[in-house]
Amino acid sequence: MYAITIPEPGGPEALVWAEVPDPVPGEGEVLVEVVSSAVNRADLLQRQGAYNPPPGSSPYPGLECAGRITALGTGVSGWSVGDEVCALLAGGGYAEQVVVPVGQLLPVPEGVDLVTAAALPEVTSTVWSNVFMISHLRPGETLLVHGGSSGIGTMAIQLAKAVGAKVAVTAGTKEKLDFCGELGADVLINYREQDFVEEIARATDGAGADVILDNMGAKYLGRNVQALAVNGRLAIIGMQGGIKGELNIAALLTKRAAITATSLRGRPLAEKAAIVAAVREHVWPLIGAGHVRAVVDRQVRMSEAGEGHRVLEESGHIGKVLLVR
Amino acid sequence: MYAITIPEPGGPEALVWAEVPDPVPGEGEVLVEVVSSAVNRADLLQRQGAYNPPPGSSPYPGLECAGRITALGTGVSGWSVGDEVCALLAGGGYAEQVVVPVGQLLPVPEGVDLVTAAALPEVTSTVWSNVFMISHLRPGETLLVHGGSSGIGTMAIQLAKAVGAKVAVTAGTKEKLDFCGELGADVLINYREQDFVEEIARATDGAGADVILDNMGAKYLGRNVQALAVNGRLAIIGMQGGIKGELNIAALLTKRAAITATSLRGRPLAEKAAIVAAVREHVWPLIGAGHVRAVVDRQVRMSEAGEGHRVLEESGHIGKVLLVR
Repeated sequence: MYAITIPEPGGPEALVWAEVPDPVPGEGEVLVEVVSSAVNRADLLQRQGAYNPPPGSSPYPGLECAGRITALGTGVSGWSVGDEVCALLAGGGYAEQVVVPVGQLLPVPEGVDLVTAAALPEVTSTVWSNVFMISHLRPGETLLVHGGSSGIGTMAIQLAKAVGAKVAVTAGTKEKLDFCGELGADVLINYREQDFVEEIARATDGAGADVILDNMGAKYLGRNVQALAVNGRLAIIGMQGGIKGELNIAALLTKRAAITATSLRGRPLAEKAAIVAAVREHVWPLIGAGHVRAVVDRQVRMSEAGEGHRVLEESGHIGKVLLVR
Repeated sequence: MYAITIPEPGGPEALVWAEVPDPVPGEGEVLVEVVSSAVNRADLLQRQGAYNPPPGSSPYPGLECAGRITALGTGVSGWSVGDEVCALLAGGGYAEQVVVPVGQLLPVPEGVDLVTAAALPEVTSTVWSNVFMISHLRPGETLLVHGGSSGIGTMAIQLAKAVGAKVAVTAGTKEKLDFCGELGADVLINYREQDFVEEIARATDGAGADVILDNMGAKYLGRNVQALAVNGRLAIIGMQGGIKGELNIAALLTKRAAITATSLRGRPLAEKAAIVAAVREHVWPLIGAGHVRAVVDRQVRMSEAGEGHRVLEESGHIGKVLLVR
């Protein structure tokens, strides 16, 4: 088969569509013929040599895909050859074929075309696990989403609104903020012009955000803690603003607040399967009913995946960048 | 009545036993004639003017007491005049009488004398809420307790062992560590001579601590994150080592770990009542059965409370310092 390989780490041009050995499904796995994948920030780090795949997983980038099952490994039940699926991957989505543990398979949701389904597994799993399973966002609470127009952000807005929360977002342009507003965000903060700590305080009568979904890491750590409400939960899922920051423990303690930092990729199979099962139970019906949708910025040919990486690096996109065969 | 007052913040001599107005119980409160109270670290900060009581609470120090109910406010049921009780307080325990919200009352556990019961409310509520309600320590997991010979530490060791966890402690002398060992601690770390990160790694085959109960704050932040296991939880309850520390978010994220910081004192009544109810349900039977006991270093006369403060400041004690009438 062909896959995107990384002969040498580097810029977008480091991604090379090349012939590689076909993967073979093992016990509890299926083989999927990939129709589409999507670009995630972690793929950019992997391309640069800064985020190696976990041991035992595919060496090719790609944390999600959509396609059709073409073969079953041993011990697989509940799935058949020919099924249209999407999947959460530890890697290998930028390829013609990929092996998927059955716990990470999802049916294509009702009303979603197969190509677009590749936009769903990472954002739904990341948002559901962090905002709901870990941070327990409740109806009536306020969620602050940094990077509201990203793939993660657009899904977080919709899911939080669907459960009856108030949603504030940060983004860097009026166009992006307007889009977040159309998705349902209640409070739109332009981080280039406004201080999100002040704006959150204003929007919540001084109470602060109950949950913050953060992709910036160190750069926002201090201000995120300032922006938290009493009993607030800061869920860090990215470090686009650096990895080491000063934590004011007194501020955290006064608020009886919590900080968590997680990634999906390194989780053991059982944890991924539990998250995917929760997504299928809680998020898929919302998508099927049309309350929540995948937001796709554009499609790029998978063999030219570097083009998709450039789009994310320039940060002009809204929603997901798909890679199609 | 008489109470310990703080006319001017300062050293232990700032504590003055003086006549003050009698407190009057309001709705949902009882009046308790205090037989004993106990010294907590927060009292030392309050004495120094660095930890003001929450609005509406007693201006006198003392976060716990034991005694007898002498009057009931309106709307109180389930408690009677004459009942022997101990209680979690927002302040005012260093006094002849104190008003207590009914949600913070506990019966004196079976087999515990009334004076000693004052050693229980703060440590049981702090340990149960942090280690179990927030950090969900499970049987077979490893708990690291900093300051293992403190009041909090001695209770944390016993409760964690009672639920089938492995317990590691740090302390500064062989005498303190030996005592922790007698209480059931499995791994004894002298922080003056050993690196707790290395010792925890050695004791857990490199896995790390599942839960850390920390009273040091900034000074230990970096090493606590290093010492955590995957899915580990760091529960900060004190800042004896400073309030601002560098957080390595990448280390936290790789471990999918959580940091919480809480105090009991500032919690609203309903949260305190929920914690006290959980303590009564889960901890009181263990005390009644003799599996868990209050560890008391010494008794000091309440009118000479400064003496008790000196003991805590010199850190030579093991367990609680009681203040008796």
